[in-house]
Amino acid sequence: MKKVLFATTALVFSAGIAAAEVSVGGDGRMGVVYNGSDWNFSSRIRVSFTASGTTDGGLEFGGSVRADQASKATSGTAASVYISGAFGKLSMGDVVGAPEALFGDLPEVGYTDLDGAGLSNISTAFGDRNNVGANEIPYLTGDNGGMVVDSTDNSGPNLLYTGTFGAFSVAASMSDGKAGSTSVNQEYAVAGAYTFGNYTVGLGYEIVDPTTGSNAKQAMISGVAQFGNTSVKAYYADGSGSNTLDKGYGIGATSVFGATSVMAYVNYAKDSDGAEGTAYGLGAAYDLGGGASIVGGVADSDIDGTDTQADLGVKFSF
Amino acid sequence: MKKVLFATTALVFSAGIAAAEVSVGGDGRMGVVYNGSDWNFSSRIRVSFTASGTTDGGLEFGGSVRADQASKATSGTAASVYISGAFGKLSMGDVVGAPEALFGDLPEVGYTDLDGAGLSNISTAFGDRNNVGANEIPYLTGDNGGMVVDSTDNSGPNLLYTGTFGAFSVAASMSDGKAGSTSVNQEYAVAGAYTFGNYTVGLGYEIVDPTTGSNAKQAMISGVAQFGNTSVKAYYADGSGSNTLDKGYGIGATSVFGATSVMAYVNYAKDSDGAEGTAYGLGAAYDLGGGASIVGGVADSDIDGTDTQADLGVKFSF
Amino acid sequence: MKKVLFATTALVFSAGIAAAEVSVGGDGRMGVVYNGSDWNFSSRIRVSFTASGTTDGGLEFGGSVRADQASKATSGTAASVYISGAFGKLSMGDVVGAPEALFGDLPEVGYTDLDGAGLSNISTAFGDRNNVGANEIPYLTGDNGGMVVDSTDNSGPNLLYTGTFGAFSVAASMSDGKAGSTSVNQEYAVAGAYTFGNYTVGLGYEIVDPTTGSNAKQAMISGVAQFGNTSVKAYYADGSGSNTLDKGYGIGATSVFGATSVMAYVNYAKDSDGAEGTAYGLGAAYDLGGGASIVGGVADSDIDGTDTQADLGVKFSF
Repeated sequence: MKKVLFATTALVFSAGIAAAEVSVGGDGRMGVVYNGSDWNFSSRIRVSFTASGTTDGGLEFGGSVRADQASKATSGTAASVYISGAFGKLSMGDVVGAPEALFGDLPEVGYTDLDGAGLSNISTAFGDRNNVGANEIPYLTGDNGGMVVDSTDNSGPNLLYTGTFGAFSVAASMSDGKAGSTSVNQEYAVAGAYTFGNYTVGLGYEIVDPTTGSNAKQAMISGVAQFGNTSVKAYYADGSGSNTLDKGYGIGATSVFGATSVMAYVNYAKDSDGAEGTAYGLGAAYDLGGGASIVGGVADSDIDGTDTQADLGVKFSF
Repeated sequence: MKKVLFATTALVFSAGIAAAEVSVGGDGRMGVVYNGSDWNFSSRIRVSFTASGTTDGGLEFGGSVRADQASKATSGTAASVYISGAFGKLSMGDVVGAPEALFGDLPEVGYTDLDGAGLSNISTAFGDRNNVGANEIPYLTGDNGGMVVDSTDNSGPNLLYTGTFGAFSVAASMSDGKAGSTSVNQEYAVAGAYTFGNYTVGLGYEIVDPTTGSNAKQAMISGVAQFGNTSVKAYYADGSGSNTLDKGYGIGATSVFGATSVMAYVNYAKDSDGAEGTAYGLGAAYDLGGGASIVGGVADSDIDGTDTQADLGVKFSF
Repeated sequence: MKKVLFATTALVFSAGIAAAEVSVGGDGRMGVVYNGSDWNFSSRIRVSFTASGTTDGGLEFGGSVRADQASKATSGTAASVYISGAFGKLSMGDVVGAPEALFGDLPEVGYTDLDGAGLSNISTAFGDRNNVGANEIPYLTGDNGGMVVDSTDNSGPNLLYTGTFGAFSVAASMSDGKAGSTSVNQEYAVAGAYTFGNYTVGLGYEIVDPTTGSNAKQAMISGVAQFGNTSVKAYYADGSGSNTLDKGYGIGATSVFGATSVMAYVNYAKDSDGAEGTAYGLGAAYDLGGGASIVGGVADSDIDGTDTQADLGVKFSF
């Protein structure tokens, strides 16, 4: 993420000088992907715009939006704006839910993420969730619409608050439950984390309150530990109410040896009808310097109808 | 707006060096909006690209295009190119009509413009026009298609000329009346303004010449005055022929007190069937410096079926 | 792929600093176009993003993507990524085929290219090819899908290798023949060129191997010569198998006199059913300096149902 552009446009209603900046960055990748039966070429380039500024009173604000490239078409996504200060950071737009903001996902393997054999294959109910790839923690909310409960799903924008106070980090998120003047699913989530030395532990709780039927709920606990050059992350999630997830747990690790990184995960989920599956992945990356890496991985699962996924390619960061 | 990247691409047919520049800017906003029955979240970020250069002979040229973000998708809009010199400025693309180029609109209120209860609700005929929001002067042409007369509407690009010679400003605009080799509605407009001290008065005349049926015509007079820290704008527009607007008039004012601005408008229109309505709005903005402002407003109208609109949020300029 | 709040924004798998850069450029144009029956306005602005970086080991990498503007909508196109070094350059994405990478097309006339009366009008079979404009050499492959052979056409991404070793240049390109796990048309192409003094001669060979039916093949020879301020390019292409092109040949020239360039071409093609036609064009450009040029041209063909095309406008490069 490079190249800062100094902005000078005055606001419409003010005589002040806009000292905010827009930086242009992005990422690219190219290589070959094995989808279980064939090796295919796969390449991508994305441009991202990141704006930031500071008010006279010291508040920070900004936003970001991404111009994707996918088969000859671009679509803007991951768009959000924020304002931040000593109170924390308030973001609105295509933001993740509170627990995901604190804990993220298990490590990604391969230069293309390799979600093809992931937990979304366990059941059609899971296929409707946003957060059930191979290495993803199956969060209930966020990403402009979490679990699909009925036909009136939240479509954003969502609001996310995060704050860090000493060893404690907290997050809260919600949707407005409205599409225009129509009621749609309302989402809420809270999360907290505590860091001591090389360890962080945290809790999260998420609710989707549908316009009809009972609430979907999900509680989760997560822990991250750093041992020398190895970082380990584990979680346990427990669904209740109309949640399509009964429970899920997983563990992932990343080790760095000089320019080489190795990462692996095991991720299990069971849906509310008892269907279950485990996804696992193993990958490596070699840093070429200057923003380029060689990245490859293998991912698979024990779910019926899935095949081994693999890839090897070059990844760029601008 | 912004920083500037020096480009070095030579023109295809020339050995010359392109010294033209592209700057990247944009705007963002976040807050809450009341649509008459509910308060919703609303956020947006846009990136804009502005190119400019100068020929060896001193002519200026350039263009701009905007990458919008709306519900996870971008669309490029407000795209135009221009060339300018002592003769004035010639623009082509998504340009406004001649009167709008000189007189603009009444002041906008709220961080989201609050058009929900505006003049477009007076009749379905008005719903087809581009320029009938709450605070907008109901111009007949421009914006890549003015009044919809029949199914063969102008879809641009439009040509706009503007020039300032001492106290006089003039503008002329037209569409080419063709979509490929098919005839579509032809638009023409002219406008002129004269400035003396703190006062500007002007006239505009617009025509849409449809492929079938009679012309739609519109004449308008506008005045702007500056009293100390207050700016006032008023207009009267008179439609004839097949114009769906019978007449419209409105007045708006903006006052600046240090970092605070207050703006208000009253805007009336009557359609060719006698349906009429008045929209009004009141808003304020507080400049936080650095390109950020807190902006809020309330807008309503006396039109059946409309509700009070309100919003409060933060607006950024990059 | 998610965002984690407490993650660094450096490359996911590396501790290295991304020193790669993104530059923003583009082009614009405005003017009038005659389509055989009417003069229309035509304008356009495009923004392009070009990323580049260097690994610690000296390999270069990067990519580019373009944000187009077309009647109020943008679409990203011409997107590709590459890595290069002493071995040559490997590109993936919306890349051209191997012969086009070395030989390009005949010179373009007019500020809008003026393809309206071109070789695509010879037959409906030609209308399905990507490379049969007025001044284009009718390559069989590339541009994310060459000749359309059946309904399972290659849709990219394609892989292109180019390398220059002393006086020799070589290129090879292929598609992966797969859309997910479905077989689609496979494309292959190779090309070579040899440069001596002011002369370059080259050969190319292209194959489209459809999922059903016989292969389409095309061989071509091309030559470029520089005489003083004039550059001349000529080619002969010979199709066989299921190729819709029986043969094609053409010649084009560009002469530069100070700030003025003049360009012309004659381009002939015959399809596999014996239908044939010749397209020709004549144009001029005057460099205004600073990245702006006045460009105009006339193009026509002897093909039934086509009309003379002409344009005159201003072209900008940012």
